[in-house]
Amino acid sequence: MPFQLPADVRAACRRGEWTDVTAGLCGPFAQANLAILPADWAFDFLRFCQANPKPCPVLEVTDPGDPLLRRIAPQADLRTDLPRYRVYRQGELVDEVLDLTTLWQDDLVGFLIGCSFSFEAELLTAAIPVRHIELGSNVPMYRTNIACHPAGRFHGPVVVSMRPMLAAQAIQAITVTSRLHAVHGAPIHLGDPSLIGIRDLDKPDYGDPVPLYPGEIPVFWACGVTPQAAALASKPPLMITHAPGHMLITDLRNEELLKDW
Amino acid sequence: MPFQLPADVRAACRRGEWTDVTAGLCGPFAQANLAILPADWAFDFLRFCQANPKPCPVLEVTDPGDPLLRRIAPQADLRTDLPRYRVYRQGELVDEVLDLTTLWQDDLVGFLIGCSFSFEAELLTAAIPVRHIELGSNVPMYRTNIACHPAGRFHGPVVVSMRPMLAAQAIQAITVTSRLHAVHGAPIHLGDPSLIGIRDLDKPDYGDPVPLYPGEIPVFWACGVTPQAAALASKPPLMITHAPGHMLITDLRNEELLKDW
Repeated sequence: MPFQLPADVRAACRRGEWTDVTAGLCGPFAQANLAILPADWAFDFLRFCQANPKPCPVLEVTDPGDPLLRRIAPQADLRTDLPRYRVYRQGELVDEVLDLTTLWQDDLVGFLIGCSFSFEAELLTAAIPVRHIELGSNVPMYRTNIACHPAGRFHGPVVVSMRPMLAAQAIQAITVTSRLHAVHGAPIHLGDPSLIGIRDLDKPDYGDPVPLYPGEIPVFWACGVTPQAAALASKPPLMITHAPGHMLITDLRNEELLKDW
Repeated sequence: MPFQLPADVRAACRRGEWTDVTAGLCGPFAQANLAILPADWAFDFLRFCQANPKPCPVLEVTDPGDPLLRRIAPQADLRTDLPRYRVYRQGELVDEVLDLTTLWQDDLVGFLIGCSFSFEAELLTAAIPVRHIELGSNVPMYRTNIACHPAGRFHGPVVVSMRPMLAAQAIQAITVTSRLHAVHGAPIHLGDPSLIGIRDLDKPDYGDPVPLYPGEIPVFWACGVTPQAAALASKPPLMITHAPGHMLITDLRNEELLKDW
Protein backbone atom coordinates (compact mmCIF):
# COMPACT_ATOMS: atom_id res chain seq x y z
CA MET A 1 0.00 0.00 0.00
CA PRO A 2 1.46 3.35 -0.97
CA PHE A 3 0.01 5.41 1.87
CA GLN A 4 1.72 6.43 5.09
CA LEU A 5 -0.88 8.68 6.63
CA PRO A 6 -4.67 8.96 6.65
CA ALA A 7 -4.44 12.42 5.07
CA ASP A 8 -2.60 10.85 2.10
CA VAL A 9 -5.42 8.37 1.51
CA ARG A 10 -8.03 11.10 1.82
CA ALA A 11 -6.13 13.30 -0.64
CA ALA A 12 -5.91 10.40 -3.09
CA CYS A 13 -9.67 9.86 -2.78
CA ARG A 14 -10.22 13.58 -3.35
CA ARG A 15 -8.16 13.48 -6.54
CA GLY A 16 -10.06 10.38 -7.70
CA GLU A 17 -6.88 8.28 -7.52
CA TRP A 18 -8.10 5.83 -4.87
CA THR A 19 -11.54 4.31 -5.45
CA ASP A 20 -11.01 0.90 -3.85
CA VAL A 21 -11.81 -0.60 -0.43
CA THR A 22 -9.87 0.73 2.56
CA ALA A 23 -9.32 -2.54 4.45
CA GLY A 24 -5.69 -2.71 5.55
CA LEU A 25 -4.86 0.92 4.70
CA CYS A 26 -3.05 2.92 7.40
CA GLY A 27 -3.22 0.04 9.88
CA PRO A 28 -3.00 1.84 13.23
CA PHE A 29 -5.66 4.42 12.32
CA ALA A 30 -9.36 3.98 12.98
CA GLN A 31 -11.76 3.80 10.05
CA ALA A 32 -15.34 5.04 10.27
CA ASN A 33 -18.75 4.32 8.77
CA LEU A 34 -20.52 7.29 7.17
CA ALA A 35 -24.23 8.12 7.15
CA ILE A 36 -25.49 11.44 5.77
CA LEU A 37 -29.08 12.55 6.32
CA PRO A 38 -31.08 15.76 5.89
CA ALA A 39 -31.17 17.97 8.99
CA ASP A 40 -34.83 17.27 9.71
CA TRP A 41 -33.99 13.58 10.11
CA ALA A 42 -30.78 14.18 12.04
CA PHE A 43 -32.13 14.62 15.58
CA ASP A 44 -34.11 11.36 15.41
CA PHE A 45 -31.07 9.57 14.01
CA LEU A 46 -28.77 10.88 16.74
CA ARG A 47 -31.37 9.94 19.37
CA PHE A 48 -31.50 6.45 17.84
CA CYS A 49 -27.72 6.17 18.05
CA GLN A 50 -27.68 7.53 21.63
CA ALA A 51 -30.26 4.92 22.65
CA ASN A 52 -28.31 2.09 20.97
CA PRO A 53 -24.65 2.84 21.60
CA LYS A 54 -23.37 -0.69 21.07
CA PRO A 55 -24.43 -0.98 17.41
CA CYS A 56 -24.27 2.81 16.80
CA PRO A 57 -21.15 4.30 18.44
CA VAL A 58 -21.09 7.88 17.13
CA LEU A 59 -17.60 9.36 16.72
CA GLU A 60 -18.54 12.74 15.23
CA VAL A 61 -21.58 14.64 13.95
CA THR A 62 -21.12 17.54 11.53
CA ASP A 63 -22.80 20.93 11.53
CA PRO A 64 -25.81 20.93 9.17
CA GLY A 65 -24.58 21.87 5.68
CA ASP A 66 -20.91 21.76 6.63
CA PRO A 67 -19.08 18.93 4.83
CA LEU A 68 -15.88 19.33 6.88
CA LEU A 69 -14.95 17.25 9.89
CA ARG A 70 -13.40 18.96 12.94
CA ARG A 71 -12.45 16.19 15.25
CA ILE A 72 -11.65 12.68 14.11
CA ALA A 73 -10.09 13.90 10.84
CA PRO A 74 -9.77 17.70 10.95
CA GLN A 75 -10.53 19.37 7.60
CA ALA A 76 -11.50 16.09 5.95
CA ASP A 77 -14.26 16.74 3.41
CA LEU A 78 -17.17 14.30 3.48
CA ARG A 79 -17.97 15.12 -0.17
CA THR A 80 -14.68 13.87 -1.56
CA ASP A 81 -12.47 12.14 1.00
CA LEU A 82 -13.99 8.65 0.95
CA PRO A 83 -13.30 6.40 -2.04
CA ARG A 84 -16.89 5.54 -2.91
CA TYR A 85 -20.43 6.36 -1.77
CA ARG A 86 -23.93 4.95 -2.05
CA VAL A 87 -26.96 7.17 -2.58
CA TYR A 88 -30.40 6.11 -1.34
CA ARG A 89 -33.68 7.89 -2.05
CA GLN A 90 -36.84 6.87 -0.16
CA GLY A 91 -34.80 3.94 1.20
CA GLU A 92 -33.87 2.60 -2.24
CA LEU A 93 -30.31 2.43 -3.58
CA VAL A 94 -30.25 4.68 -6.65
CA ASP A 95 -26.57 5.32 -7.32
CA GLU A 96 -22.96 4.57 -6.40
CA VAL A 97 -20.65 7.55 -6.88
CA LEU A 98 -17.02 8.56 -6.27
CA ASP A 99 -17.78 12.12 -5.20
CA LEU A 100 -20.66 13.99 -3.53
CA THR A 101 -19.84 17.47 -4.77
CA THR A 102 -22.88 17.77 -7.01
CA LEU A 103 -25.17 15.96 -4.53
CA TRP A 104 -24.29 18.03 -1.48
CA GLN A 105 -27.10 20.12 0.05
CA ASP A 106 -26.89 22.79 2.70
CA ASP A 107 -29.16 20.81 5.04
CA LEU A 108 -27.09 17.63 5.13
CA VAL A 109 -25.62 16.28 8.38
CA GLY A 110 -22.82 13.69 8.47
CA PHE A 111 -22.58 10.98 11.12
CA LEU A 112 -19.30 9.11 11.55
CA ILE A 113 -19.78 5.81 13.33
CA GLY A 114 -17.14 3.50 14.82
CA CYS A 115 -16.16 0.41 12.85
CA SER A 116 -15.18 -3.09 13.91
CA PHE A 117 -11.92 -2.79 11.93
CA SER A 118 -10.59 -1.05 15.06
CA PHE A 119 -11.41 -3.79 17.52
CA GLU A 120 -10.19 -6.47 15.12
CA ALA A 121 -6.81 -4.74 15.12
CA GLU A 122 -6.85 -4.97 18.92
CA LEU A 123 -7.85 -8.67 18.78
CA LEU A 124 -4.97 -9.44 16.43
CA THR A 125 -2.60 -7.52 18.72
CA ALA A 126 -3.80 -9.77 21.55
CA ALA A 127 -3.00 -12.81 19.38
CA ILE A 128 -6.68 -13.70 18.98
CA PRO A 129 -7.20 -14.97 15.42
CA VAL A 130 -9.99 -13.45 13.32
CA ARG A 131 -11.36 -16.04 10.90
CA HIS A 132 -12.62 -13.80 8.07
CA ILE A 133 -9.32 -11.92 8.01
CA GLU A 134 -7.45 -15.22 7.79
CA LEU A 135 -9.71 -16.20 4.88
CA GLY A 136 -9.59 -12.81 3.18
CA SER A 137 -13.39 -12.54 3.19
CA ASN A 138 -15.95 -10.10 4.59
CA VAL A 139 -17.20 -10.64 8.15
CA PRO A 140 -20.55 -12.50 8.34
CA MET A 141 -23.41 -10.33 9.62
CA TYR A 142 -26.90 -11.36 10.73
CA ARG A 143 -30.17 -9.66 11.61
CA THR A 144 -31.21 -10.76 15.11
CA ASN A 145 -34.54 -10.86 16.94
CA ILE A 146 -33.20 -8.25 19.39
CA ALA A 147 -35.01 -4.95 18.81
CA CYS A 148 -33.11 -1.68 18.97
CA HIS A 149 -34.58 0.95 21.25
CA PRO A 150 -36.71 3.01 18.85
CA ALA A 151 -36.32 6.78 18.49
CA GLY A 152 -38.69 8.91 16.45
CA ARG A 153 -38.95 7.44 12.95
CA PHE A 154 -36.12 4.94 13.48
CA HIS A 155 -36.51 1.37 14.66
CA GLY A 156 -35.25 -2.05 13.65
CA PRO A 157 -33.36 -5.14 14.79
CA VAL A 158 -29.81 -5.21 16.08
CA VAL A 159 -27.50 -6.53 13.36
CA VAL A 160 -24.51 -8.52 14.65
CA SER A 161 -21.18 -9.58 13.21
CA MET A 162 -19.85 -13.04 14.12
CA ARG A 163 -16.35 -14.36 14.80
CA PRO A 164 -15.75 -18.04 15.68
CA MET A 165 -13.40 -18.64 18.63
CA LEU A 166 -12.33 -21.19 21.18
CA ALA A 167 -13.82 -20.51 24.60
CA ALA A 168 -10.55 -19.18 26.04
CA GLN A 169 -10.15 -16.86 23.05
CA ALA A 170 -13.73 -15.69 23.45
CA ILE A 171 -13.11 -14.83 27.10
CA GLN A 172 -9.99 -12.88 26.18
CA ALA A 173 -11.83 -11.17 23.30
CA ILE A 174 -14.53 -10.04 25.74
CA THR A 175 -11.88 -8.55 28.00
CA VAL A 176 -10.19 -6.75 25.11
CA THR A 177 -13.32 -5.38 23.44
CA SER A 178 -15.19 -4.42 26.61
CA ARG A 179 -12.82 -1.43 26.88
CA LEU A 180 -13.53 -0.33 23.30
CA HIS A 181 -16.91 1.40 23.71
CA ALA A 182 -16.33 3.59 20.68
CA VAL A 183 -16.25 0.52 18.44
CA HIS A 184 -19.12 -1.69 19.65
CA GLY A 185 -17.65 -2.74 23.02
CA ALA A 186 -18.08 -6.25 24.42
CA PRO A 187 -19.99 -8.92 22.47
CA ILE A 188 -23.76 -9.11 22.98
CA HIS A 189 -24.06 -12.91 22.68
CA LEU A 190 -22.03 -16.07 22.35
CA GLY A 191 -22.97 -19.69 21.65
CA ASP A 192 -26.38 -20.84 20.36
CA PRO A 193 -27.32 -18.53 17.45
CA SER A 194 -31.01 -19.49 17.65
CA LEU A 195 -31.30 -17.70 21.00
CA ILE A 196 -30.96 -14.38 19.17
CA GLY A 197 -33.04 -15.39 16.18
CA ILE A 198 -30.30 -16.56 13.80
CA ARG A 199 -31.42 -19.72 11.98
CA ASP A 200 -28.39 -20.62 9.89
CA LEU A 201 -24.84 -19.34 10.42
CA ASP A 202 -24.04 -20.43 6.86
CA LYS A 203 -26.50 -17.88 5.48
CA PRO A 204 -25.50 -14.45 6.74
CA ASP A 205 -27.74 -11.49 5.84
CA TYR A 206 -24.65 -9.46 4.89
CA GLY A 207 -21.03 -10.43 4.21
CA ASP A 208 -19.65 -13.93 3.73
CA PRO A 209 -20.10 -17.14 5.77
CA VAL A 210 -17.03 -18.48 7.63
CA PRO A 211 -16.43 -22.01 8.96
CA LEU A 212 -16.45 -22.94 12.67
CA TYR A 213 -13.64 -25.35 13.54
CA PRO A 214 -13.97 -28.08 16.22
CA GLY A 215 -14.45 -26.67 19.71
CA GLU A 216 -15.24 -23.17 18.52
CA ILE A 217 -18.27 -21.14 19.49
CA PRO A 218 -19.69 -18.21 17.54
CA VAL A 219 -19.22 -14.82 19.26
CA PHE A 220 -21.54 -11.99 18.25
CA TRP A 221 -20.84 -8.25 18.34
CA ALA A 222 -23.30 -5.44 17.64
CA CYS A 223 -22.58 -4.18 14.14
CA GLY A 224 -22.42 -0.78 12.46
CA VAL A 225 -24.78 -1.96 9.73
CA THR A 226 -27.57 -1.58 12.33
CA PRO A 227 -28.05 2.21 12.10
CA GLN A 228 -27.85 2.18 8.31
CA ALA A 229 -30.44 -0.60 8.07
CA ALA A 230 -32.75 1.18 10.52
CA ALA A 231 -32.42 4.48 8.69
CA LEU A 232 -33.11 2.96 5.29
CA ALA A 233 -36.16 1.09 6.63
CA SER A 234 -37.70 4.45 7.53
CA LYS A 235 -37.26 5.64 3.92
CA PRO A 236 -35.71 9.09 4.33
CA PRO A 237 -35.95 11.21 1.15
CA LEU A 238 -32.14 11.13 0.85
CA MET A 239 -29.47 9.14 2.65
CA ILE A 240 -25.85 8.81 1.59
CA THR A 241 -23.46 6.24 3.02
CA HIS A 242 -19.96 4.97 2.28
CA ALA A 243 -19.98 2.05 -0.14
CA PRO A 244 -19.41 -1.18 1.83
CA GLY A 245 -15.73 -1.45 2.79
CA HIS A 246 -14.95 2.02 1.39
CA MET A 247 -14.58 3.79 4.74
CA LEU A 248 -13.34 7.13 5.99
CA ILE A 249 -9.82 6.79 7.37
CA THR A 250 -9.61 9.00 10.45
CA ASP A 251 -6.64 10.63 12.16
CA LEU A 252 -7.49 8.76 15.37
CA ARG A 253 -5.26 5.88 16.27
CA ASN A 254 -7.15 2.79 17.40
CA GLU A 255 -5.63 3.13 20.87
CA GLU A 256 -7.17 6.60 21.17
CA LEU A 257 -10.58 4.94 21.02
CA LEU A 258 -9.76 3.53 24.44
CA LYS A 259 -10.11 6.99 25.92
CA ASP A 260 -13.54 8.04 27.16
CA TRP A 261 -13.18 11.01 24.89
CA MET B 1 -36.66 7.52 54.59
CA PRO B 2 -40.14 6.13 53.91
CA PHE B 3 -39.57 5.03 50.32
CA GLN B 4 -38.78 1.53 49.12
CA LEU B 5 -38.89 1.99 45.39
CA PRO B 6 -38.16 4.76 42.88
CA ALA B 7 -41.80 4.68 41.73
CA ASP B 8 -42.87 5.49 45.30
CA VAL B 9 -40.68 8.61 45.38
CA ARG B 10 -41.91 9.69 41.97
CA ALA B 11 -45.53 9.21 43.04
CA ALA B 12 -44.91 11.27 46.20
CA CYS B 13 -43.39 14.03 44.05
CA ARG B 14 -46.40 13.85 41.73
CA ARG B 15 -48.78 14.26 44.66
CA GLY B 16 -46.71 17.17 46.00
CA GLU B 17 -45.80 15.21 49.12
CA TRP B 18 -42.03 15.11 48.53
CA THR B 19 -40.40 18.45 47.65
CA ASP B 20 -36.98 17.92 49.26
CA VAL B 21 -33.57 16.82 47.95
CA THR B 22 -33.20 13.21 46.80
CA ALA B 23 -29.72 12.45 48.19
CA GLY B 24 -29.81 9.10 49.94
CA LEU B 25 -33.26 8.09 48.67
CA CYS B 26 -33.56 4.58 47.19
CA GLY B 27 -29.84 3.92 47.59
CA PRO B 28 -29.17 1.29 44.93
CA PHE B 29 -31.04 3.20 42.20
CA ALA B 30 -29.39 5.69 39.87
CA GLN B 31 -30.46 9.33 39.98
CA ALA B 32 -30.39 11.58 36.94
CA ASN B 33 -29.93 15.24 36.05
CA LEU B 34 -32.72 16.80 33.97
CA ALA B 35 -32.44 19.41 31.20
CA ILE B 36 -35.47 20.37 29.12
CA LEU B 37 -35.09 22.47 25.96
CA PRO B 38 -37.28 23.44 23.00
CA ALA B 39 -37.04 21.06 20.03
CA ASP B 40 -35.18 23.55 17.85
CA TRP B 41 -32.35 23.60 20.42
CA ALA B 42 -32.41 19.86 21.03
CA PHE B 43 -30.25 18.61 18.15
CA ASP B 44 -27.42 21.02 19.00
CA PHE B 45 -27.65 20.01 22.67
CA LEU B 46 -27.55 16.30 21.89
CA ARG B 47 -24.59 16.90 19.55
CA PHE B 48 -22.86 18.79 22.37
CA CYS B 49 -23.45 15.88 24.75
CA GLN B 50 -22.29 13.35 22.12
CA ALA B 51 -19.07 15.31 21.62
CA ASN B 52 -18.46 15.56 25.38
CA PRO B 53 -19.52 12.23 26.83
CA LYS B 54 -17.50 12.47 30.04
CA PRO B 55 -19.24 15.57 31.43
CA CYS B 56 -22.52 14.89 29.54
CA PRO B 57 -23.40 11.17 29.70
CA VAL B 58 -26.92 11.02 28.22
CA LEU B 59 -29.12 8.28 29.66
CA GLU B 60 -32.35 9.06 27.78
CA VAL B 61 -33.83 11.65 25.41
CA THR B 62 -37.62 12.05 25.15
CA ASP B 63 -39.73 12.47 22.06
CA PRO B 64 -40.48 16.17 21.40
CA GLY B 65 -43.60 17.12 23.34
CA ASP B 66 -43.83 13.80 25.18
CA PRO B 67 -43.25 14.23 28.93
CA LEU B 68 -43.10 10.49 29.61
CA LEU B 69 -39.91 8.46 29.91
CA ARG B 70 -39.72 5.01 28.28
CA ARG B 71 -36.44 3.57 29.38
CA ILE B 72 -34.68 4.56 32.59
CA ALA B 73 -37.98 5.07 34.46
CA PRO B 74 -40.84 3.82 32.28
CA GLN B 75 -43.97 5.99 32.49
CA ALA B 76 -42.27 8.56 34.75
CA ASP B 77 -43.66 12.02 33.94
CA LEU B 78 -41.06 14.77 33.61
CA ARG B 79 -43.71 17.38 34.46
CA THR B 80 -44.43 16.06 37.94
CA ASP B 81 -42.10 13.28 39.06
CA LEU B 82 -39.14 15.31 40.28
CA PRO B 83 -39.45 17.18 43.58
CA ARG B 84 -38.44 20.63 42.35
CA TYR B 85 -37.52 22.40 39.11
CA ARG B 86 -35.76 25.57 37.98
CA VAL B 87 -37.02 27.62 35.04
CA TYR B 88 -34.61 29.72 32.97
CA ARG B 89 -35.58 32.17 30.23
CA GLN B 90 -32.89 33.65 27.98
CA GLY B 91 -30.32 32.05 30.31
CA GLU B 92 -31.68 33.76 33.44
CA LEU B 93 -33.23 31.92 36.40
CA VAL B 94 -36.81 33.19 36.60
CA ASP B 95 -38.61 30.67 38.80
CA GLU B 96 -38.38 27.58 40.99
CA VAL B 97 -41.47 25.37 40.84
CA LEU B 98 -42.75 22.03 42.12
CA ASP B 99 -44.59 21.06 38.95
CA LEU B 100 -44.27 21.75 35.20
CA THR B 101 -47.87 21.01 34.23
CA THR B 102 -48.71 24.59 33.32
CA LEU B 103 -45.27 25.26 31.76
CA TRP B 104 -45.18 22.20 29.49
CA GLN B 105 -45.12 22.88 25.74
CA ASP B 106 -45.56 20.45 22.90
CA ASP B 107 -42.09 21.22 21.52
CA LEU B 108 -40.14 20.40 24.70
CA VAL B 109 -37.48 17.66 24.76
CA GLY B 110 -36.17 16.17 28.01
CA PHE B 111 -32.56 15.04 28.47
CA LEU B 112 -31.70 12.77 31.39
CA ILE B 113 -28.01 12.85 32.22
CA GLY B 114 -26.01 10.55 34.49
CA CYS B 115 -25.11 11.77 37.96
CA SER B 116 -22.06 11.27 40.16
CA PHE B 117 -24.31 9.93 42.96
CA SER B 118 -24.03 6.61 41.11
CA PHE B 119 -20.25 6.41 41.02
CA GLU B 120 -19.98 7.61 44.62
CA ALA B 121 -22.11 4.62 45.62
CA GLU B 122 -19.59 2.42 43.81
CA LEU B 123 -16.65 4.16 45.53
CA LEU B 124 -18.20 3.61 48.96
CA THR B 125 -18.84 -0.05 48.06
CA ALA B 126 -15.12 -0.30 47.27
CA ALA B 127 -14.32 1.17 50.72
CA ILE B 128 -13.02 4.41 49.19
CA PRO B 129 -14.10 7.28 51.45
CA VAL B 130 -15.85 10.28 49.89
CA ARG B 131 -15.06 13.44 51.84
CA HIS B 132 -18.14 15.57 51.17
CA ILE B 133 -20.41 12.64 52.06
CA GLU B 134 -18.50 12.18 55.34
CA LEU B 135 -19.00 15.89 56.02
CA GLY B 136 -22.62 16.00 54.91
CA SER B 137 -21.88 18.80 52.42
CA ASN B 138 -22.26 19.27 48.66
CA VAL B 139 -19.37 18.18 46.41
CA PRO B 140 -17.03 21.05 45.40
CA MET B 141 -17.20 21.88 41.67
CA TYR B 142 -14.90 24.09 39.60
CA ARG B 143 -14.84 25.60 36.13
CA THR B 144 -11.63 24.53 34.38
CA ASN B 145 -9.61 25.95 31.49
CA ILE B 146 -10.42 22.80 29.47
CA ALA B 147 -12.82 23.70 26.67
CA CYS B 148 -15.65 21.35 25.77
CA HIS B 149 -15.89 20.41 22.12
CA PRO B 150 -18.38 22.97 20.77
CA ALA B 151 -21.54 21.95 18.90
CA GLY B 152 -23.81 24.44 17.18
CA ARG B 153 -24.77 27.13 19.69
CA PHE B 154 -23.28 25.30 22.68
CA HIS B 155 -19.76 25.76 24.02
CA GLY B 156 -18.11 26.28 27.38
CA PRO B 157 -15.55 24.93 29.84
CA VAL B 158 -15.57 21.49 31.38
CA VAL B 159 -16.79 21.74 34.97
CA VAL B 160 -15.24 19.20 37.36
CA SER B 161 -16.12 17.83 40.78
CA MET B 162 -13.27 17.12 43.21
CA ARG B 163 -12.75 14.42 45.83
CA PRO B 164 -9.56 14.33 47.97
CA MET B 165 -7.87 10.92 48.27
CA LEU B 166 -4.64 9.19 49.18
CA ALA B 167 -2.71 8.06 46.11
CA ALA B 168 -3.62 4.39 46.56
CA GLN B 169 -7.29 5.33 46.93
CA ALA B 170 -7.07 7.49 43.82
CA ILE B 171 -5.66 4.59 41.84
CA GLN B 172 -8.45 2.32 43.02
CA ALA B 173 -11.05 5.03 42.33
CA ILE B 174 -9.75 5.30 38.74
CA THR B 175 -10.14 1.56 38.31
CA VAL B 176 -13.67 1.59 39.73
CA THR B 177 -14.96 4.63 37.83
CA SER B 178 -13.31 3.87 34.50
CA ARG B 179 -15.95 1.18 34.00
CA LEU B 180 -18.80 3.62 34.70
CA HIS B 181 -19.04 5.49 31.38
CA ALA B 182 -22.69 6.34 31.95
CA VAL B 183 -21.76 8.41 34.99
CA HIS B 184 -18.63 10.38 33.97
CA GLY B 185 -16.16 7.48 33.80
CA ALA B 186 -12.55 7.84 34.96
CA PRO B 187 -11.26 11.14 36.39
CA ILE B 188 -9.88 13.71 33.95
CA HIS B 189 -7.14 15.06 36.23
CA LEU B 190 -5.43 14.53 39.57
CA GLY B 191 -2.91 16.55 41.53
CA ASP B 192 -2.01 20.19 40.81
CA PRO B 193 -5.29 22.10 40.31
CA SER B 194 -3.54 24.99 38.54
CA LEU B 195 -2.77 22.73 35.59
CA ILE B 196 -6.47 22.76 34.70
CA GLY B 197 -7.03 26.40 35.57
CA ILE B 198 -8.28 26.08 39.15
CA ARG B 199 -6.75 28.83 41.31
CA ASP B 200 -8.07 28.02 44.77
CA LEU B 201 -9.57 24.72 45.88
CA ASP B 202 -11.12 26.55 48.85
CA LYS B 203 -13.28 28.61 46.50
CA PRO B 204 -15.34 26.23 44.36
CA ASP B 205 -17.57 27.73 41.66
CA TYR B 206 -20.44 25.49 42.79
CA GLY B 207 -21.02 23.42 45.95
CA ASP B 208 -18.99 23.54 49.17
CA PRO B 209 -15.21 23.41 49.82
CA VAL B 210 -13.82 20.31 51.53
CA PRO B 211 -10.49 19.92 53.38
CA LEU B 212 -7.53 17.92 52.03
CA TYR B 213 -5.87 15.86 54.77
CA PRO B 214 -2.09 15.15 54.86
CA GLY B 215 -0.89 13.03 51.97
CA GLU B 216 -4.07 13.50 49.96
CA ILE B 217 -4.28 14.69 46.37
CA PRO B 218 -7.32 16.20 44.72
CA VAL B 219 -8.95 13.97 42.09
CA PHE B 220 -11.14 15.63 39.46
CA TRP B 221 -14.08 14.11 37.57
CA ALA B 222 -16.01 15.70 34.70
CA CYS B 223 -19.28 16.98 36.17
CA GLY B 224 -22.91 17.01 35.05
CA VAL B 225 -23.11 20.77 35.70
CA THR B 226 -21.13 21.18 32.46
CA PRO B 227 -24.01 20.74 29.97
CA GLN B 228 -26.36 22.89 32.02
CA ALA B 229 -23.79 25.70 32.26
CA ALA B 230 -23.06 25.50 28.52
CA ALA B 231 -26.74 25.54 27.63
CA LEU B 232 -27.52 28.52 29.86
CA ALA B 233 -24.55 30.46 28.46
CA SER B 234 -26.12 30.24 25.01
CA LYS B 235 -29.35 31.82 26.39
CA PRO B 236 -32.07 29.53 25.03
CA PRO B 237 -35.57 31.11 25.21
CA LEU B 238 -36.63 28.44 27.72
CA MET B 239 -34.69 25.85 29.66
CA ILE B 240 -35.97 23.85 32.61
CA THR B 241 -33.73 21.80 34.93
CA HIS B 242 -34.11 19.94 38.19
CA ALA B 243 -33.37 22.16 41.19
CA PRO B 244 -29.88 21.32 42.52
CA GLY B 245 -29.99 18.03 44.44
CA HIS B 246 -33.65 17.44 43.50
CA MET B 247 -33.04 14.68 40.95
CA LEU B 248 -35.08 12.15 39.05
CA ILE B 249 -34.82 8.75 40.71
CA THR B 250 -34.66 6.16 37.94
CA ASP B 251 -35.57 2.48 37.90
CA LEU B 252 -31.98 1.63 36.89
CA ARG B 253 -29.81 0.12 39.56
CA ASN B 254 -26.34 1.64 39.71
CA GLU B 255 -24.83 -1.71 38.68
CA GLU B 256 -26.89 -1.60 35.48
CA LEU B 257 -24.89 1.48 34.46
CA LEU B 258 -21.94 -0.87 34.09
CA LYS B 259 -23.56 -2.38 31.05
CA ASP B 260 -22.77 -0.82 27.68
CA TRP B 261 -26.50 -0.45 27.25
